[in-house]
Amino acid sequence: MLITFEGLDYSGKSTQVQRLANRLMREGYQVLVVREPGGTPIGEGIRSLLLDKTLTAMTERAELFLFSASRAQLVEEVIRPALERGMVVLCDRFFDSTTAYQGWGRGLPTDAVETVNDLATGGLKPTLTILVDVPVEVLEVRARASGLGRDRMESNGRSFYDRVRSGYRELAHKESRFVVVDGNRSEADIEREIWERVRPRVEASKTLVRNEG
Amino acid sequence: MLITFEGLDYSGKSTQVQRLANRLMREGYQVLVVREPGGTPIGEGIRSLLLDKTLTAMTERAELFLFSASRAQLVEEVIRPALERGMVVLCDRFFDSTTAYQGWGRGLPTDAVETVNDLATGGLKPTLTILVDVPVEVLEVRARASGLGRDRMESNGRSFYDRVRSGYRELAHKESRFVVVDGNRSEADIEREIWERVRPRVEASKTLVRNEG
Repeated sequence: MLITFEGLDYSGKSTQVQRLANRLMREGYQVLVVREPGGTPIGEGIRSLLLDKTLTAMTERAELFLFSASRAQLVEEVIRPALERGMVVLCDRFFDSTTAYQGWGRGLPTDAVETVNDLATGGLKPTLTILVDVPVEVLEVRARASGLGRDRMESNGRSFYDRVRSGYRELAHKESRFVVVDGNRSEADIEREIWERVRPRVEASKTLVRNEG
Repeated sequence: MLITFEGLDYSGKSTQVQRLANRLMREGYQVLVVREPGGTPIGEGIRSLLLDKTLTAMTERAELFLFSASRAQLVEEVIRPALERGMVVLCDRFFDSTTAYQGWGRGLPTDAVETVNDLATGGLKPTLTILVDVPVEVLEVRARASGLGRDRMESNGRSFYDRVRSGYRELAHKESRFVVVDGNRSEADIEREIWERVRPRVEASKTLVRNEG
Protein backbone atom coordinates (compact mmCIF):
# COMPACT_ATOMS: atom_id res chain seq x y z
CA MET A 1 0.00 0.00 0.00
CA LEU A 2 1.23 3.44 -0.98
CA ILE A 3 0.40 6.39 1.30
CA THR A 4 1.59 9.84 0.27
CA PHE A 5 1.82 13.01 2.36
CA GLU A 6 1.28 16.43 0.88
CA GLY A 7 1.22 19.99 2.11
CA LEU A 8 3.17 23.22 2.13
CA ASP A 9 6.57 23.57 3.81
CA TYR A 10 6.19 24.00 7.59
CA SER A 11 2.85 22.18 7.50
CA GLY A 12 4.45 19.52 9.71
CA LYS A 13 3.88 16.70 7.24
CA SER A 14 7.39 15.22 7.53
CA THR A 15 6.93 14.87 11.30
CA GLN A 16 3.67 13.06 10.65
CA VAL A 17 5.28 10.75 8.11
CA GLN A 18 7.75 9.73 10.80
CA ARG A 19 5.08 9.33 13.47
CA LEU A 20 2.93 7.17 11.20
CA ALA A 21 5.96 5.07 10.22
CA ASN A 22 6.77 4.43 13.88
CA ARG A 23 3.17 3.54 14.66
CA LEU A 24 2.95 1.12 11.73
CA MET A 25 6.23 -0.55 12.71
CA ARG A 26 5.03 -0.98 16.31
CA GLU A 27 1.92 -2.65 14.85
CA GLY A 28 4.15 -5.08 12.97
CA TYR A 29 3.96 -3.69 9.45
CA GLN A 30 6.96 -3.57 7.16
CA VAL A 31 7.37 0.11 6.36
CA LEU A 32 9.45 2.00 3.83
CA VAL A 33 9.76 5.80 4.02
CA VAL A 34 10.92 7.69 0.94
CA ARG A 35 11.31 11.34 0.20
CA GLU A 36 11.31 13.33 -3.01
CA PRO A 37 13.46 14.30 -4.75
CA GLY A 38 16.06 11.62 -4.04
CA GLY A 39 15.95 8.07 -2.70
CA THR A 40 18.09 6.53 -5.46
CA PRO A 41 21.66 7.28 -6.59
CA ILE A 42 20.27 9.03 -9.70
CA GLY A 43 17.66 10.83 -7.60
CA GLU A 44 20.30 12.06 -5.15
CA GLY A 45 22.32 13.42 -8.08
CA ILE A 46 19.20 15.27 -9.23
CA ARG A 47 18.55 16.49 -5.69
CA SER A 48 22.04 18.05 -5.58
CA LEU A 49 21.33 19.85 -8.85
CA LEU A 50 18.02 21.16 -7.50
CA LEU A 51 19.64 22.36 -4.27
CA ASP A 52 22.83 23.74 -5.87
CA LYS A 53 22.82 27.44 -5.02
CA THR A 54 25.36 28.28 -7.76
CA LEU A 55 22.84 27.13 -10.39
CA THR A 56 20.65 30.19 -10.27
CA ALA A 57 17.89 30.92 -12.75
CA MET A 58 16.71 27.36 -13.15
CA THR A 59 13.59 27.57 -15.29
CA GLU A 60 10.25 26.33 -13.99
CA ARG A 61 10.11 23.73 -16.73
CA ALA A 62 13.60 22.39 -16.06
CA GLU A 63 12.61 22.10 -12.39
CA LEU A 64 9.43 20.19 -13.30
CA PHE A 65 11.40 17.71 -15.40
CA LEU A 66 14.12 17.19 -12.79
CA PHE A 67 11.51 16.34 -10.15
CA SER A 68 9.85 14.01 -12.65
CA ALA A 69 13.13 12.26 -13.54
CA SER A 70 13.85 11.62 -9.87
CA ARG A 71 10.29 10.32 -9.36
CA ALA A 72 10.41 8.01 -12.39
CA GLN A 73 13.58 6.43 -11.07
CA LEU A 74 12.24 6.15 -7.50
CA VAL A 75 9.01 4.49 -8.61
CA GLU A 76 10.70 1.85 -10.69
CA GLU A 77 13.78 1.20 -8.55
CA VAL A 78 12.31 1.45 -5.04
CA ILE A 79 8.54 1.95 -4.68
CA ARG A 80 7.20 -0.75 -7.01
CA PRO A 81 9.53 -3.49 -5.70
CA ALA A 82 8.59 -2.58 -2.10
CA LEU A 83 4.86 -2.67 -2.90
CA GLU A 84 5.34 -6.05 -4.58
CA ARG A 85 6.90 -7.34 -1.35
CA GLY A 86 3.75 -6.21 0.51
CA MET A 87 5.35 -3.27 2.34
CA VAL A 88 3.56 -0.09 3.38
CA VAL A 89 5.34 2.70 1.50
CA LEU A 90 5.10 6.23 2.93
CA CYS A 91 6.11 8.96 0.53
CA ASP A 92 6.91 12.48 1.79
CA ARG A 93 5.61 14.33 -1.31
CA PHE A 94 4.67 12.65 -4.57
CA PHE A 95 3.22 13.79 -7.87
CA ASP A 96 0.50 15.95 -6.30
CA SER A 97 3.31 18.28 -5.20
CA THR A 98 4.18 18.80 -8.86
CA THR A 99 0.56 19.55 -9.77
CA ALA A 100 0.21 21.97 -6.85
CA TYR A 101 3.58 23.75 -7.05
CA GLN A 102 4.50 23.70 -10.75
CA GLY A 103 0.92 23.69 -12.07
CA TRP A 104 -1.09 25.86 -9.69
CA GLY A 105 1.81 27.76 -8.15
CA ARG A 106 4.03 28.46 -11.17
CA GLY A 107 1.25 28.45 -13.72
CA LEU A 108 2.42 25.64 -16.03
CA PRO A 109 -0.54 24.10 -17.91
CA THR A 110 -2.14 21.57 -15.54
CA ASP A 111 -3.18 19.08 -18.25
CA ALA A 112 0.42 18.86 -19.51
CA VAL A 113 1.64 18.54 -15.90
CA GLU A 114 -0.79 15.65 -15.39
CA THR A 115 0.54 13.91 -18.51
CA VAL A 116 4.08 14.33 -17.17
CA ASN A 117 3.01 12.94 -13.77
CA ASP A 118 1.38 9.92 -15.36
CA LEU A 119 4.47 9.21 -17.41
CA ALA A 120 6.76 9.62 -14.37
CA THR A 121 4.77 7.20 -12.20
CA GLY A 122 3.78 4.80 -14.97
CA GLY A 123 0.21 5.35 -13.74
CA LEU A 124 0.87 4.37 -10.11
CA LYS A 125 -1.60 6.10 -7.75
CA PRO A 126 -1.52 6.22 -3.95
CA THR A 127 -4.15 4.33 -1.98
CA LEU A 128 -4.35 7.29 0.41
CA THR A 129 -3.02 10.83 0.23
CA ILE A 130 -2.86 12.76 3.50
CA LEU A 131 -3.04 16.52 2.91
CA VAL A 132 -1.80 18.33 6.03
CA ASP A 133 -3.62 21.61 5.56
CA VAL A 134 -2.49 24.80 7.32
CA PRO A 135 -3.39 28.43 6.48
CA VAL A 136 -0.53 30.31 4.82
CA GLU A 137 -0.48 32.98 7.57
CA VAL A 138 0.24 30.27 10.15
CA LEU A 139 3.05 28.85 7.99
CA GLU A 140 4.60 32.30 7.70
CA VAL A 141 4.73 32.56 11.49
CA ARG A 142 6.37 29.11 11.69
CA ALA A 143 8.89 30.00 8.95
CA ARG A 144 9.81 33.24 10.74
CA ALA A 145 10.23 31.38 14.02
CA SER A 146 12.55 28.81 12.44
CA GLY A 147 14.53 31.46 10.60
CA LEU A 148 15.45 28.97 7.90
CA GLY A 149 12.64 29.24 5.39
CA ARG A 150 11.88 32.92 5.77
CA ASP A 151 13.84 34.12 2.73
CA ARG A 152 12.31 31.59 0.42
CA MET A 153 8.79 32.25 1.64
CA GLU A 154 9.31 35.95 1.22
CA SER A 155 10.83 35.66 -2.24
CA ASN A 156 7.99 33.45 -3.52
CA GLY A 157 5.39 35.71 -1.94
CA ARG A 158 2.16 34.90 -0.14
CA SER A 159 0.08 34.73 -3.33
CA PHE A 160 2.27 31.87 -4.60
CA TYR A 161 1.58 29.80 -1.48
CA ASP A 162 -2.10 30.73 -1.60
CA ARG A 163 -2.26 29.34 -5.14
CA VAL A 164 -0.44 26.14 -4.12
CA ARG A 165 -2.79 25.64 -1.18
CA SER A 166 -5.85 26.23 -3.40
CA GLY A 167 -4.44 23.68 -5.85
CA TYR A 168 -4.08 21.08 -3.11
CA ARG A 169 -7.60 21.70 -1.84
CA GLU A 170 -9.01 21.47 -5.35
CA LEU A 171 -7.21 18.14 -5.89
CA ALA A 172 -8.53 16.85 -2.55
CA HIS A 173 -12.03 17.85 -3.61
CA LYS A 174 -11.72 15.98 -6.94
CA GLU A 175 -9.95 12.78 -5.89
CA SER A 176 -11.42 10.39 -3.33
CA ARG A 177 -7.98 9.09 -2.27
CA PHE A 178 -7.36 12.38 -0.38
CA VAL A 179 -7.81 12.83 3.35
CA VAL A 180 -7.52 16.45 4.48
CA VAL A 181 -6.34 16.90 8.07
CA ASP A 182 -6.25 20.20 9.90
CA GLY A 183 -2.53 20.79 10.55
CA ASN A 184 -3.12 23.76 12.85
CA ARG A 185 -3.25 21.58 15.99
CA SER A 186 -0.83 19.70 18.23
CA GLU A 187 1.35 17.02 16.60
CA ALA A 188 -0.25 14.37 18.81
CA ASP A 189 -3.78 15.36 17.76
CA ILE A 190 -2.86 15.29 14.09
CA GLU A 191 -1.13 11.93 14.52
CA ARG A 192 -4.26 10.51 16.18
CA GLU A 193 -6.52 11.63 13.35
CA ILE A 194 -4.19 10.29 10.67
CA TRP A 195 -3.97 6.95 12.43
CA GLU A 196 -7.77 6.72 12.65
CA ARG A 197 -7.96 7.22 8.89
CA VAL A 198 -5.08 4.92 7.98
CA ARG A 199 -5.74 2.06 10.40
CA PRO A 200 -8.85 0.53 8.72
CA ARG A 201 -7.11 0.66 5.33
CA VAL A 202 -3.92 -1.10 6.38
CA GLU A 203 -5.84 -3.65 8.46
CA ALA A 204 -8.02 -4.46 5.46
CA SER A 205 -4.98 -4.90 3.27
CA LYS A 206 -3.31 -7.16 5.86
CA THR A 207 -6.38 -9.39 5.99
CA LEU A 208 -6.30 -9.46 2.22
CA VAL A 209 -2.66 -10.50 2.13
CA ARG A 210 -3.28 -13.21 4.73
CA ASN A 211 -6.27 -14.55 2.84
CA GLU A 212 -4.35 -14.58 -0.39
CA GLY A 213 -1.38 -16.27 1.25
CA MET B 1 16.36 31.13 -37.37
CA LEU B 2 16.60 27.75 -35.70
CA ILE B 3 18.00 24.83 -37.70
CA THR B 4 18.19 21.42 -36.03
CA PHE B 5 20.14 18.34 -37.08
CA GLU B 6 18.86 14.84 -36.46
CA GLY B 7 19.99 11.32 -37.19
CA LEU B 8 21.46 8.22 -35.61
CA ASP B 9 24.93 8.14 -34.06
CA TYR B 10 27.62 7.79 -36.76
CA SER B 11 25.31 9.38 -39.33
CA GLY B 12 27.87 12.20 -39.62
CA LYS B 13 25.43 14.91 -38.53
CA SER B 14 27.81 16.61 -36.07
CA THR B 15 30.37 17.05 -38.85
CA GLN B 16 27.67 18.62 -40.99
CA VAL B 17 26.61 20.97 -38.16
CA GLN B 18 30.19 22.21 -38.03
CA ARG B 19 30.51 22.52 -41.81
CA LEU B 20 27.27 24.48 -42.07
CA ALA B 21 28.31 26.73 -39.17
CA ASN B 22 31.61 27.52 -40.92
CA ARG B 23 29.85 28.22 -44.21
CA LEU B 24 27.31 30.53 -42.57
CA MET B 25 30.06 32.42 -40.73
CA ARG B 26 32.01 32.90 -43.97
CA GLU B 27 28.83 34.33 -45.48
CA GLY B 28 28.64 36.82 -42.63
CA TYR B 29 25.92 35.34 -40.48
CA GLN B 30 26.07 35.33 -36.71
CA VAL B 31 25.95 31.67 -35.76
CA LEU B 32 25.45 29.83 -32.49
CA VAL B 33 26.03 26.08 -32.28
CA VAL B 34 24.53 24.16 -29.35
CA ARG B 35 24.42 20.51 -28.47
CA GLU B 36 22.06 18.44 -26.37
CA PRO B 37 22.16 17.55 -23.59
CA GLY B 38 24.23 20.42 -22.14
CA GLY B 39 24.92 23.98 -23.18
CA THR B 40 24.09 25.58 -19.81
CA PRO B 41 25.54 25.01 -16.32
CA ILE B 42 22.37 23.10 -15.36
CA GLY B 43 22.45 21.21 -18.65
CA GLU B 44 26.08 20.22 -18.15
CA GLY B 45 25.20 18.90 -14.68
CA ILE B 46 22.44 16.83 -16.28
CA ARG B 47 24.83 15.67 -19.02
CA SER B 48 27.23 14.33 -16.36
CA LEU B 49 24.38 12.40 -14.75
CA LEU B 50 23.38 10.92 -18.12
CA LEU B 51 26.96 9.91 -18.91
CA ASP B 52 27.87 8.69 -15.40
CA LYS B 53 28.76 5.04 -15.85
CA THR B 54 28.32 4.27 -12.13
CA LEU B 55 24.62 5.18 -12.42
CA THR B 56 23.49 1.99 -14.08
CA ALA B 57 19.88 1.04 -14.59
CA MET B 58 18.60 4.51 -15.34
CA THR B 59 14.99 4.03 -16.35
CA GLU B 60 13.77 5.11 -19.78
CA ARG B 61 11.42 7.61 -18.21
CA ALA B 62 14.08 9.19 -16.00
CA GLU B 63 16.25 9.52 -19.11
CA LEU B 64 13.40 11.19 -21.02
CA PHE B 65 12.89 13.74 -18.25
CA LEU B 66 16.60 14.49 -17.85
CA PHE B 67 16.91 15.25 -21.57
CA SER B 68 13.78 17.41 -21.31
CA ALA B 69 15.08 19.32 -18.28
CA SER B 70 18.32 20.12 -20.09
CA ARG B 71 16.35 21.20 -23.18
CA ALA B 72 13.97 23.44 -21.23
CA GLN B 73 16.91 25.25 -19.68
CA LEU B 74 18.77 25.53 -23.00
CA VAL B 75 15.76 26.96 -24.82
CA GLU B 76 15.08 29.64 -22.26
CA GLU B 77 18.64 30.55 -21.28
CA VAL B 78 20.41 30.29 -24.66
CA ILE B 79 18.33 29.58 -27.77
CA ARG B 80 15.51 32.13 -27.37
CA PRO B 81 17.84 35.03 -26.51
CA ALA B 82 20.07 34.18 -29.53
CA LEU B 83 17.07 34.02 -31.85
CA GLU B 84 15.87 37.37 -30.53
CA ARG B 85 19.27 38.86 -31.43
CA GLY B 86 18.77 37.58 -35.01
CA MET B 87 21.37 34.80 -34.87
CA VAL B 88 21.21 31.54 -36.80
CA VAL B 89 21.09 28.81 -34.15
CA LEU B 90 22.24 25.32 -35.14
CA CYS B 91 21.22 22.58 -32.76
CA ASP B 92 22.90 19.16 -32.84
CA ARG B 93 19.80 17.15 -31.82
CA PHE B 94 16.60 18.68 -30.48
CA PHE B 95 13.20 17.34 -29.45
CA ASP B 96 12.83 15.06 -32.49
CA SER B 97 15.61 12.94 -30.95
CA THR B 98 13.37 12.37 -27.94
CA THR B 99 10.41 11.38 -30.12
CA ALA B 100 12.58 9.03 -32.20
CA TYR B 101 14.70 7.46 -29.42
CA GLN B 102 12.45 7.45 -26.35
CA GLY B 103 9.15 7.21 -28.24
CA TRP B 104 9.81 4.98 -31.26
CA GLY B 105 12.97 3.30 -29.95
CA ARG B 106 12.10 2.66 -26.30
CA GLY B 107 8.36 2.43 -26.80
CA LEU B 108 7.17 5.24 -24.51
CA PRO B 109 3.73 6.53 -25.63
CA THR B 110 4.40 9.03 -28.43
CA ASP B 111 1.48 11.36 -27.59
CA ALA B 112 2.79 11.78 -24.03
CA VAL B 113 6.32 12.27 -25.39
CA GLU B 114 4.99 15.03 -27.68
CA THR B 115 3.33 16.76 -24.72
CA VAL B 116 6.65 16.60 -22.84
CA ASN B 117 8.50 18.01 -25.87
CA ASP B 118 6.05 20.88 -26.20
CA LEU B 119 6.40 21.72 -22.54
CA ALA B 120 10.21 21.54 -22.71
CA THR B 121 10.47 23.90 -25.68
CA GLY B 122 7.55 26.14 -24.76
CA GLY B 123 6.26 25.40 -28.27
CA LEU B 124 9.41 26.53 -30.11
CA LYS B 125 9.76 24.72 -33.47
CA PRO B 126 12.76 24.71 -35.83
CA THR B 127 12.45 26.49 -39.16
CA LEU B 128 14.35 23.60 -40.75
CA THR B 129 15.29 20.15 -39.51
CA ILE B 130 18.01 18.33 -41.42
CA LEU B 131 17.69 14.55 -41.08
CA VAL B 132 20.96 12.90 -42.07
CA ASP B 133 19.66 9.49 -43.06
CA VAL B 134 21.92 6.44 -43.24
CA PRO B 135 20.94 2.75 -43.28
CA VAL B 136 21.62 0.99 -39.96
CA GLU B 137 23.91 -1.59 -41.61
CA VAL B 138 26.18 1.24 -42.78
CA LEU B 139 26.23 2.75 -39.29
CA GLU B 140 27.22 -0.60 -37.81
CA VAL B 141 30.22 -0.73 -40.14
CA ARG B 142 31.20 2.81 -39.10
CA ALA B 143 30.76 2.01 -35.39
CA ARG B 144 32.93 -1.11 -35.73
CA ALA B 145 35.59 0.87 -37.58
CA SER B 146 35.69 3.54 -34.86
CA GLY B 147 35.75 0.94 -32.10
CA LEU B 148 34.08 3.40 -29.72
CA GLY B 149 30.39 2.88 -30.28
CA ARG B 150 30.39 -0.82 -30.99
CA ASP B 151 29.39 -1.98 -27.51
CA ARG B 152 26.50 0.38 -27.26
CA MET B 153 25.20 -0.46 -30.73
CA GLU B 154 25.42 -4.14 -29.96
CA SER B 155 23.74 -3.85 -26.58
CA ASN B 156 20.81 -1.85 -28.00
CA GLY B 157 20.50 -4.24 -30.93
CA ARG B 158 19.78 -3.56 -34.57
CA SER B 159 16.00 -3.62 -34.16
CA PHE B 160 16.24 -0.66 -31.75
CA TYR B 161 18.06 1.46 -34.33
CA ASP B 162 15.69 0.29 -37.06
CA ARG B 163 12.78 1.58 -34.96
CA VAL B 164 14.51 4.91 -34.31
CA ARG B 165 15.26 5.34 -38.02
CA SER B 166 11.64 4.51 -38.92
CA GLY B 167 10.49 7.06 -36.36
CA TYR B 168 12.67 9.75 -37.89
CA ARG B 169 11.44 8.96 -41.41
CA GLU B 170 7.84 9.00 -40.24
CA LEU B 171 8.36 12.42 -38.61
CA ALA B 172 10.01 13.71 -41.80
CA HIS B 173 7.02 12.49 -43.79
CA LYS B 174 4.55 14.26 -41.47
CA GLU B 175 6.29 17.59 -40.88
CA SER B 176 7.17 19.96 -43.71
CA ARG B 177 10.10 21.51 -41.77
CA PHE B 178 12.14 18.32 -42.42
CA VAL B 179 14.75 17.93 -45.13
CA VAL B 180 16.03 14.38 -45.52
CA VAL B 181 19.55 14.11 -46.90
CA ASP B 182 21.22 10.87 -47.91
CA GLY B 183 24.13 10.53 -45.46
CA ASN B 184 25.71 7.60 -47.30
CA ARG B 185 27.89 9.88 -49.47
CA SER B 186 31.05 11.94 -49.10
CA GLU B 187 31.02 14.69 -46.46
CA ALA B 188 31.53 17.32 -49.19
CA ASP B 189 28.53 16.08 -51.20
CA ILE B 190 26.30 16.10 -48.13
CA GLU B 191 27.51 19.56 -47.18
CA ARG B 192 26.69 20.84 -50.68
CA GLU B 193 23.16 19.50 -50.58
CA ILE B 194 22.51 20.92 -47.10
CA TRP B 195 23.79 24.31 -48.16
CA GLU B 196 21.52 24.31 -51.23
CA ARG B 197 18.54 23.70 -48.94
CA VAL B 198 19.56 26.15 -46.22
CA ARG B 199 20.82 29.04 -48.37
CA PRO B 200 17.46 30.30 -49.73
CA ARG B 201 15.97 30.19 -46.23
CA VAL B 202 18.70 32.15 -44.49
CA GLU B 203 18.92 34.65 -47.37
CA ALA B 204 15.18 35.25 -47.17
CA SER B 205 15.40 35.81 -43.44
CA LYS B 206 18.33 38.23 -43.89
CA THR B 207 16.34 40.28 -46.39
CA LEU B 208 13.50 40.28 -43.94
CA VAL B 209 15.69 41.55 -41.13
CA ARG B 210 17.17 44.26 -43.38
CA ASN B 211 13.74 45.38 -44.54
CA GLU B 212 12.49 45.47 -41.01
CA GLY B 213 15.55 47.37 -39.88
